[in-house]
Amino acid sequence: MKLYYAPGTCALASHIALEEAGATYEGVKLDLRAGDQLKPDYLALNPKGRVPTLVTEHGVLTETPAILAFVAHSFPAAKLAPLDDAFAFARAQAFNSYLCATVHVAHAHKLRGRRWADEQTSLADMQRKVPQTMGACFEMIEGSMLEGPFVVGKAYTICDPYLFTLAQWLEADGVDPDRIPKVIDHRRRMAERPAVRKAIAEELAA
Amino acid sequence: MKLYYAPGTCALASHIALEEAGATYEGVKLDLRAGDQLKPDYLALNPKGRVPTLVTEHGVLTETPAILAFVAHSFPAAKLAPLDDAFAFARAQAFNSYLCATVHVAHAHKLRGRRWADEQTSLADMQRKVPQTMGACFEMIEGSMLEGPFVVGKAYTICDPYLFTLAQWLEADGVDPDRIPKVIDHRRRMAERPAVRKAIAEELAA
Repeated sequence: MKLYYAPGTCALASHIALEEAGATYEGVKLDLRAGDQLKPDYLALNPKGRVPTLVTEHGVLTETPAILAFVAHSFPAAKLAPLDDAFAFARAQAFNSYLCATVHVAHAHKLRGRRWADEQTSLADMQRKVPQTMGACFEMIEGSMLEGPFVVGKAYTICDPYLFTLAQWLEADGVDPDRIPKVIDHRRRMAERPAVRKAIAEELAA
Repeated sequence: MKLYYAPGTCALASHIALEEAGATYEGVKLDLRAGDQLKPDYLALNPKGRVPTLVTEHGVLTETPAILAFVAHSFPAAKLAPLDDAFAFARAQAFNSYLCATVHVAHAHKLRGRRWADEQTSLADMQRKVPQTMGACFEMIEGSMLEGPFVVGKAYTICDPYLFTLAQWLEADGVDPDRIPKVIDHRRRMAERPAVRKAIAEELAA
């Protein structure tokens, strides 16, 4: 398999999951500022021009929640999701859907506002609101979702690397960490895992 | 099971899937303008204050892609997803992730812009851009995703009611239907399915 990623993006979640699974894969780093994601070869793989993209022996996968579910299904011995419990699996998928459709979207209004508006004043308005929207998202996670010690409770799942990845953005997005102690503790514990350290080291390497 | 929905929202996708599955469930209609989704009883079920919410014997589920996956897993005889093929299942999840995190979000900037900005000028700017962003999303679906006759090819899956649901919004969002003939044909065929007609009729009933 090949994982196309860029440092600082949500692709880190898939990267960590592949490491946790013990998968054999090659990481391919894109430089988003150089526009690697818009080059013809990459668009042929992923016409959306985003990361992550996972190339498998069966074909190409995009979208973090789908890649995470695929890794969990493909490496059942790693026990990265409750594969034999339709409800528990759906709960994990619901958490990851919230991260992709609400939390990541709130964050994207800081630097990617041009996706949804054109005027400079609108972009500035969106940026000013990010601390509030990201704060509300993470307080929702803190209060109603993160069961502890892991997202779905005692078991580590594909929800954990995804939460950890978006929690990298908290301080830069102006969220007060003192209001979300469980999230911060989760992030601290996650950062100590060998799979997490390895994925981050690879992304930061030249 | 109980499905909490509101007419005109993405909850229609879950509603249709339950009908396709032959599930026994009760539909509960919320009036979003009256603020039903923010009342304490509902927030106790779904602290996010959104629809859909599916109450099952195992607990509460939110987020359309998760509810759809749960329905597919819970009613395997209905064959609403490729449950025995991890890659094919993930491809279906990737499509639904794109709908929830990109297409629905683009649409939401028309009437829900206050989620991400405060100034009237920003909200107007967002609204002006919706035909462009929704048009780009549906051209991506038309050109790269909708295999035909159904989303993933020959088999009807949980991708189809979700695409059909978001395609309800095309004309009001200013998208030129002539540019997306496959999507429009899919919508027309979907509208003829008994499960779709039944779900819509229930949502429109007093």
